[in-house]
Amino acid sequence: MGVCRIIPLGGLGEVGKNMTVYEADGAIVVVDAGLAFPRDEHLGVDLVLPDFSYLREREHMIRGVVLTHGHEDHVGSLPYLMRECRVPVVAATRLTLGLVKSKLDEHGLLREAELREVSPYDEPFQLGPFRIELVRMAHSIPDAAAVVLETPGGRVVHTGDYKLDHTPVDGQRTDVGKLADLGNRGVDLVLGDSTNAERPGVTQSERVVGEAFRQIFPGRSGRILVSSFASNVHRMQQAVDAGVAAGRKVAFVGRSMRKNSNIARNLGYMDVADDVIMRPHELAELPRNEQLILCTGSQGEPMSALTRIAYDDHPAVSVEAGDTVIISAKPIPGNELRVHDAINRLARSGAEVLHEDNAPVHVSGHGRAEELRTILALLRPRAVMPVHGEFRMLAAHAQLAREGGIPDENIVLAENGTVVELSDGNARIVDRVPAGMTFVDGLGVGDVHDVALRDRRRLSEDGVLIVVATLAGSNGRGALTAPPELIVRGFGEAAEPLLDELRSEADRVLRELLADDVTEIKLLQEHVHDALGGVVYDRTRRRPMILPVLVEV
Amino acid sequence: MGVCRIIPLGGLGEVGKNMTVYEADGAIVVVDAGLAFPRDEHLGVDLVLPDFSYLREREHMIRGVVLTHGHEDHVGSLPYLMRECRVPVVAATRLTLGLVKSKLDEHGLLREAELREVSPYDEPFQLGPFRIELVRMAHSIPDAAAVVLETPGGRVVHTGDYKLDHTPVDGQRTDVGKLADLGNRGVDLVLGDSTNAERPGVTQSERVVGEAFRQIFPGRSGRILVSSFASNVHRMQQAVDAGVAAGRKVAFVGRSMRKNSNIARNLGYMDVADDVIMRPHELAELPRNEQLILCTGSQGEPMSALTRIAYDDHPAVSVEAGDTVIISAKPIPGNELRVHDAINRLARSGAEVLHEDNAPVHVSGHGRAEELRTILALLRPRAVMPVHGEFRMLAAHAQLAREGGIPDENIVLAENGTVVELSDGNARIVDRVPAGMTFVDGLGVGDVHDVALRDRRRLSEDGVLIVVATLAGSNGRGALTAPPELIVRGFGEAAEPLLDELRSEADRVLRELLADDVTEIKLLQEHVHDALGGVVYDRTRRRPMILPVLVEV
Repeated sequence: MGVCRIIPLGGLGEVGKNMTVYEADGAIVVVDAGLAFPRDEHLGVDLVLPDFSYLREREHMIRGVVLTHGHEDHVGSLPYLMRECRVPVVAATRLTLGLVKSKLDEHGLLREAELREVSPYDEPFQLGPFRIELVRMAHSIPDAAAVVLETPGGRVVHTGDYKLDHTPVDGQRTDVGKLADLGNRGVDLVLGDSTNAERPGVTQSERVVGEAFRQIFPGRSGRILVSSFASNVHRMQQAVDAGVAAGRKVAFVGRSMRKNSNIARNLGYMDVADDVIMRPHELAELPRNEQLILCTGSQGEPMSALTRIAYDDHPAVSVEAGDTVIISAKPIPGNELRVHDAINRLARSGAEVLHEDNAPVHVSGHGRAEELRTILALLRPRAVMPVHGEFRMLAAHAQLAREGGIPDENIVLAENGTVVELSDGNARIVDRVPAGMTFVDGLGVGDVHDVALRDRRRLSEDGVLIVVATLAGSNGRGALTAPPELIVRGFGEAAEPLLDELRSEADRVLRELLADDVTEIKLLQEHVHDALGGVVYDRTRRRPMILPVLVEV
Repeated sequence: MGVCRIIPLGGLGEVGKNMTVYEADGAIVVVDAGLAFPRDEHLGVDLVLPDFSYLREREHMIRGVVLTHGHEDHVGSLPYLMRECRVPVVAATRLTLGLVKSKLDEHGLLREAELREVSPYDEPFQLGPFRIELVRMAHSIPDAAAVVLETPGGRVVHTGDYKLDHTPVDGQRTDVGKLADLGNRGVDLVLGDSTNAERPGVTQSERVVGEAFRQIFPGRSGRILVSSFASNVHRMQQAVDAGVAAGRKVAFVGRSMRKNSNIARNLGYMDVADDVIMRPHELAELPRNEQLILCTGSQGEPMSALTRIAYDDHPAVSVEAGDTVIISAKPIPGNELRVHDAINRLARSGAEVLHEDNAPVHVSGHGRAEELRTILALLRPRAVMPVHGEFRMLAAHAQLAREGGIPDENIVLAENGTVVELSDGNARIVDRVPAGMTFVDGLGVGDVHDVALRDRRRLSEDGVLIVVATLAGSNGRGALTAPPELIVRGFGEAAEPLLDELRSEADRVLRELLADDVTEIKLLQEHVHDALGGVVYDRTRRRPMILPVLVEV
C-alpha cells in the first residue's frame, strides 16, 4: 500500500482560510481554498489568504480543487490561488459551483479551469490517484458536502462544515446512512469540523428560526428588516416564506444579498415568486407593513446595507418607530462592538431590534459536541485529525475522540503546515512546511508583511514626526543652512513650547556633530532620531515614528 | 419649592465614564467621576475621560463629589477632575475611599480634598443645598451604595451599579428595607443602572461562583490560577477560601491584584491569614498542587499577568499540562479576541481553561430586568431616568418603567449633556450642554482630538509616503536641484517600478509648475500631493498619507 501526505495550509489554530493539501504519487488534490478576514492587528489589510508557496513550488502536481461548500472561508481564496497556480479542475456541488463561477467571473478567471459539477449521488470520480466521492452534509448554506478520498495511504473522510440537522429546511439532511456505510467499509482518518466542539449538546435545527419568523412577523405594523449572511439561502427562504404568508413583499438590499439571491433562484435553491419581489427604490410606493427587506450587514460591516440604514445613510431604506429589525446572525469574534453600535443606532431610530440575545432568530451551522460524537460513532475511524478551529476547539474535538475510544496515538493535533503521513491506514506527523498568512491590501497580494504592519501599528498609536534640515558643504565641512523644521501628523496638538524644544534640540545635535566633523547622513539621522525620541517620550510618554530628512545642497 | 438641574456628563449611550452633576442654588455636587477605556477607533489613546468643561466653568460652585463604589468607570477620572477643578470634599464608603486614596496618592493629590468616609448607617450629611444619605447596594465590589439626594427640586435616588443579591458573600445585601422606606417617604426621580435591563430574569448570586470553586478545586492536581478583576474582592475571597480548604497557599500576581488585596485586607474587607500567602517568587518552593494564584488579566490586557503567563513571558509563573486556569470574568465587548487568544495559548500549554462558557465561574454584578422592576416597585418613583448603559439598555430600562406604570412623560431618556430639571417633583429635559470625550494619551490630557485620530487612522491603514525635493532660486525662478526622493513607511514592499514612477511623476509635476512660474510652496505641495495620490491609488488601491517636503535653498 502507498502513502498519502496530508498538509493543512489553513484553518487550524484559527477560524477561517480553510485549505488542505492531499498529496500522493506525485499528484496533489486540494480540499477547499478559503480566506480569512483580517484581525485588529492586521492594520489596513483587506483579506487574509493561506500562504500558497507549498503549492506554487508544486504547481505541476495539482490535479484539482474540491470544494465542500460555498462559504468564503472555504472558497474565497480560490481566485487568488488560480492567479498563481494552474488548477485543471474545480469540482463542487451545483450551488457551490454557482457561487464560485460568479467569483471567478469577477476575477476574469472563468475559463482557466474545468468547473466540474459533482453530486453526492454520483458515482465516485477520479482526480490523479484519488478516487473521490461526496456525502451530503447539512450546514448553513445548501449543497454542503463531506469529501471522501480513497488515497494510496487509506480512506479519508474530510467533513467540511456540518451539523446534524435532522429537519433541514430543504429536506437535504446529513446523509447518516452513507456515513454509516463508510464506517462499515472502514475509514482510516477523519478530518472533522471542530468549530463547536467545546459546546455541549446539539445545535438546533435551522427550522427553529423559521418558526421564530412565523411568530414574529404577523404582529408587526411597520417595516421588517432581516439581516443575515447572504449565503444563508435557507434563512432567506424562511424569511421570505414568513413574509409572504404575512402579506408582505420582499426587497433584497445589499450587493451580495442581491447577487446570491439571484444565483440561488436561478439554480433552483430558492423559491420566490417574481411578483413578491420589489426593487429597493420601489419600497416607497408600498405601505410599510407590507414590506420585508432582506439585507446584508449582520456583522456591522462599515459599508454594508444595515450599517448604512442604521446611520440613516442608505439611499433607499430607512427605519423609524414601529419598524422591526432582526439581526439573524451571531457576531464573529471581533465584530461585537460594530454590531452593538448598529443595534444602538437602530434602537435610537425607534425600531425594535431582535437579535440572538433576545429572540430565537439565529442558530449555528456547526454541530456541537454530541453531533461530533455521533459522526465519529458512525464513521468509526482509526484516526482523527481535528480541523476548522482555534486550538481550544481542536483540543476539545480531540477530547471527544479520546472519549469515543480513539487511542491517543491516533489523534492528530496538527497545525497549519504540519505534514501528516497516512500510510497503510496509519496517520502520523512527519514534517512541517511553511504555512503562514498572505495579506491582500488593495490590489497588492503578499506585499504587506510584518515590517509594514509594525510601522502601521507605530504610526497608528502616536503618529509621525518629520524633521527636515538642510546641510550645505562649506570648506569640506557641513553646516546647517537654517534651523530644522518639523512636520507632525497624528501626534496631537503638540504645544508650541514642545515643538520649539524639539527644533532647538535637533539644531543643537546637528551643529555639535557637524562641528565634530560628523557628516555621514545616516549617522546624523540616527543621532537626531534618538535625541528627539528621548525628548518626546520624556515630555509626553509617546513614541511617534521619527523620520529625520537631511537634505544636502 | 426650588429647582435642581441634573446633568449626566458621562455613562449614557455608552458603558463607562459615569458622572452626573446635581446643581441647585448655585452649588454643585457630582455623583461619580468615572473613566472609560478606549475603543478601537481611539487609536493610541490610553484612557477616555468625561469632558469636564461644564464643571471647569463652574469650579467655584463645586461642593463635593460623592462616589457610589470603587470601580474605574465610577472613580477613575477623579484625579483628572481634581487636577482641573478644586473639589472640597470627596465622600464615599470605607473601601471606595481606600481605593481612591491610593489613586490620589499616585497622582500627588492626597491633600487636595477632604476625604470623608460616610456609611449607609450614618445620619444624612449636607453638601451645599443637598442633604445626602447612602443605601447599601450589592455589587461586584464591596461597599457599593446608592445615593439619595434631597434636593430643592425633589428627592432623587441615584442607584449606582447594583444587583439584588439576597445572599451576598459578605452578608451586606441590598438594603431593600431602606429602599421601601424611601418609597413610603416618596421618591420623585430615580436614576437607575441599566446595564442588564435587556436581560430577562435575575442575576445569580456571587455565592454561586464560590460553590463552583469549591467543586472545582479539590480534584485538581496542578496549579490553579484564577483571573478576575482585581476590585472583585468577594471573588478573590471565595477563591482564597476554596483554595485554603483544598490545602493550597495563595499568591497574588499582577500590580493591581497585589495593591487591591493589600487595601482590602488592611481595611478588613478580605480575610486571608498571613501564613497562607506566598510571594510569586516563592512558588517554585511549593508543589504545584499546593498553589493557588490569583492574577490580573481576565480581559486579555496585553501587559497583564495572565497574558504574560499565557505567552510564557512571566518572570515567576508558568503553566503546564495538569494546571487549571479559571477566567472568572466576562470579556468586555471589544476584548473578546484577546481573551480567546489567551485561552488558546493556555490550552496549548496543556492547561485546562475554565471560563464563563464552559463552567459557572462568573456572575455579573448588575441586576437584570426583574431586579430593576423590584427596585422600581420598592421606590415607587414619580419619574425614572435610565443611566449607566448603551442606548439599547436605556431603552429597555425605559420599557420596564413603562410596564411598571410610570407614565411616558415621566420617563426621561437623556443623553450625556442633557440638562434635566427637577422642579416641584417634576422632571423634564430643558437644555443641552457640551459633554464629549477627553482623551488621555501618555502624559497628555485633552490634546488628542478628532484630527489626530483621523490622521492616525489614515496612517494605520496605508502608512505614509514622504516626497522630498529641493528647490533652488535662479533668476527669480525656482528650479529642482535634484530628482525628488521618497521615504515610505507602513505602505508595503513598494515595488521599485512604482517608486520610480512616483519619483518621476513628482519630478514632472514640479518641473512643469516651476516652468509656469508657480513657486508658492503650498501650491507646489498640493499639486505633488494630488498627483502622487492619484498614481498610488490607481496602481495599488491604497491611500497612504502623502507629505511633500519642499526645501528652498
